[in-house]
Amino acid sequence: MKPSIPKGTRDFSPVEMSKRNYIFNTIREVYSLYGFEQIETPAMENLSTLMGKYGEEGDKLLFKIQNSGDYFRGISDEELLSRDALHLAGRFCEKGLRYDLTVPFARYVVMHRDDLTLPFRRYQIQPVWRADRPQRGRYREFYQCDADIVGSDSLLNEVELMQIVDTVFTRLGVRVCIKINNRKILTGIAEMIGQAEKIVDITVAIDKLDKIGLDGVNAELEAAGLPADAIESLQPIIGLNGTNSEKLQTIRTLLNGSTIGLKGIEETEFILNTLEGLSLKNQVETDLTLARGLNYYTGAIFEVKALDVEMGSITGGGRYDNLTGIFGMPGLSGVGISFGADRIYDVLNQLDLYPASALTRPQVLFVNFGNAEVQYLLPVVARLRHNGVRAELYPDAAKMKRQMSYANARQIPYVVLAGETEMQQGMVTLKNMNTGEQTLVDKDTFTL
Amino acid sequence: MKPSIPKGTRDFSPVEMSKRNYIFNTIREVYSLYGFEQIETPAMENLSTLMGKYGEEGDKLLFKIQNSGDYFRGISDEELLSRDALHLAGRFCEKGLRYDLTVPFARYVVMHRDDLTLPFRRYQIQPVWRADRPQRGRYREFYQCDADIVGSDSLLNEVELMQIVDTVFTRLGVRVCIKINNRKILTGIAEMIGQAEKIVDITVAIDKLDKIGLDGVNAELEAAGLPADAIESLQPIIGLNGTNSEKLQTIRTLLNGSTIGLKGIEETEFILNTLEGLSLKNQVETDLTLARGLNYYTGAIFEVKALDVEMGSITGGGRYDNLTGIFGMPGLSGVGISFGADRIYDVLNQLDLYPASALTRPQVLFVNFGNAEVQYLLPVVARLRHNGVRAELYPDAAKMKRQMSYANARQIPYVVLAGETEMQQGMVTLKNMNTGEQTLVDKDTFTL
Repeated sequence: MKPSIPKGTRDFSPVEMSKRNYIFNTIREVYSLYGFEQIETPAMENLSTLMGKYGEEGDKLLFKIQNSGDYFRGISDEELLSRDALHLAGRFCEKGLRYDLTVPFARYVVMHRDDLTLPFRRYQIQPVWRADRPQRGRYREFYQCDADIVGSDSLLNEVELMQIVDTVFTRLGVRVCIKINNRKILTGIAEMIGQAEKIVDITVAIDKLDKIGLDGVNAELEAAGLPADAIESLQPIIGLNGTNSEKLQTIRTLLNGSTIGLKGIEETEFILNTLEGLSLKNQVETDLTLARGLNYYTGAIFEVKALDVEMGSITGGGRYDNLTGIFGMPGLSGVGISFGADRIYDVLNQLDLYPASALTRPQVLFVNFGNAEVQYLLPVVARLRHNGVRAELYPDAAKMKRQMSYANARQIPYVVLAGETEMQQGMVTLKNMNTGEQTLVDKDTFTL
Repeated sequence: MKPSIPKGTRDFSPVEMSKRNYIFNTIREVYSLYGFEQIETPAMENLSTLMGKYGEEGDKLLFKIQNSGDYFRGISDEELLSRDALHLAGRFCEKGLRYDLTVPFARYVVMHRDDLTLPFRRYQIQPVWRADRPQRGRYREFYQCDADIVGSDSLLNEVELMQIVDTVFTRLGVRVCIKINNRKILTGIAEMIGQAEKIVDITVAIDKLDKIGLDGVNAELEAAGLPADAIESLQPIIGLNGTNSEKLQTIRTLLNGSTIGLKGIEETEFILNTLEGLSLKNQVETDLTLARGLNYYTGAIFEVKALDVEMGSITGGGRYDNLTGIFGMPGLSGVGISFGADRIYDVLNQLDLYPASALTRPQVLFVNFGNAEVQYLLPVVARLRHNGVRAELYPDAAKMKRQMSYANARQIPYVVLAGETEMQQGMVTLKNMNTGEQTLVDKDTFTL
């Protein structure tokens, strides 16, 4: 009898919603200033659209929706008794819940290709669903806030995405470090040391330098099967430090001769140099250990870390080629970014960064002393609302104490009272709930 | 290979999203002025929460989500081979997509009862899913925009919901008629003529008066099994007209002696009289043929019709008792309202009522003549954005013609150009795309 919700899902209370809306609205507003326009796609996509796009593991993590009506039709007894859950899911179900916003976006671009003007800049803020094992900070339903540009390979797009990140976090009051890398540099490095297939192992190992030290990293590289001379060549990369241009200089030396590697350096330099002229509020840092979406991104890769809170990446993105190729529309390059709303929410909570104006609770409660008083107050409530004040009239003529504790529980900052005395004078009593101060004010003119 | 989306679902393009957001934001803002606060609940609910709440037909229309992993576990071969689709759905699936916002709200109130201060006023704007046969204007995924107050049986709540309806449609520029009825009046009428079980038949028949005339209505009542004397007693109700108070007077005569019926009249009179003092912009009309949610509502029932468009009800709601009783928390009265976003969207489209400010496309496009020009323009773009102007820089140095048709296709009203001449003077050329007019302006000070 006690109702519950599926594990890994959440209800959001009014206070949580105000805070979440503050984050979403900030992101939305900045996207919009940069010329991105919003789209929405259905929660359900055909499984044929989703399957095979997120690897074998991803196929299992898709929430599948059972067909309506007789979903057994056309399935033989033998097939049924095989109890092959994954195979039969494809027979029982034609639809699934979207797993991210990227594949639906690719599907959207292909389906609406004739109506779109390229380059197409869209943003999308919607929930996604994954049948992951729920754990602290990982949910089965969560929002993504994506912006992508398809149909342009100009690096100005990367520059603008970095400006967007900088603006959003400046507006939210969070100090961040924007880390950038480039898949082409990583490819170049792996090529130059003759270990093209070991990119992931290499970046994962280098990423642990802070934790396990240089010897640890080298041991890990050896364990991953890298020959001694390859590990030797990697030493300048592992200990890479200094300013962005010092780092790029070191990498350039190693990559001399790798066309793709040098292209990656050139791209990174263009982005960094252009950003220099735009005086961002936050630091942008070259970081070769960024390896997110490595089998996906083809150029720039970015990730954002909060400086004042211990927390994983709170925003990320990169350049991908051929996003729409999977749906038969090849040759379209894209670059995108995704803000992690849930983690940003946690960061703002930990740093207590929500402005008072983010909370949209009522500003004033009108106390209800009975019908005569209510009829006197109703036009006053209406006037305030008309002037944009969030106002509430307590609906029942309950005891004063109950109405005051209601105002306190909801943290409503002002209360208005009107009894016989006020009514005879055309006044109301305005009480400040924080200071306790009471003022007699004209009912037709007072404001908050 | 050609991708598609499930039937009955929709993609929303940027223009459609702007229009939808305009409607949602208007409703959200008004709800908020009336002290309602937003909550959100998960798309997926446990099937135990949803099943049995919408009738037998409703159970079939729930989208059910297949369990992850081995969903065959615990099911015998015999059970499997029974191919009993509805029964086995309950074995294969533990979760379903929400069907409306009311049941999840009731579940929310019961689950969070210890954290809530009653009366609780919440609004909720989220999609719902129904496996209905898709047809013109009926979708399998659509948004509901609900506001409810639970924990107060004061009629002031009904009054405020009517004010909300009036304010929302006034802001949207749609002239409407707000119709109100009361379940208690209907019960009283059916009682007084000794036909308590025939309420629905009676209201459905009376509702057809305009279409089939008085004789037709009477014939239909007879066909529904009403005896002649009952039909005779109904004649004043069928031909009911005049002002609200004339109508109520007529009904009162018939209901004299029915406690519940007279209570319904009294409630309606309180609502109408209180609204009279609040000078709504739209008409409120007593209409006995309103029978929405008759096995659900227990007091006031409302429905809203657009005056200038042929369209079904675009908003509705009413008073229900014991909403949370199904989840073991009896005795909580509630009243609510639901705006039909999809129909309101169609109404605004047909009447061409979207203000220009509702569209959030970029206000200005900066033309890209190459890297030198771009470096010159980037700080100008940044300055405008900082001042709240939605500005876009064309990312590629494409042919002028292509960039101008891009601006036209996206209906961007201004274009900024800067070539060698402008750069030497610290100026840019601002072109109004509607008039074709070009002006040379200072790059550091011009605004839009």
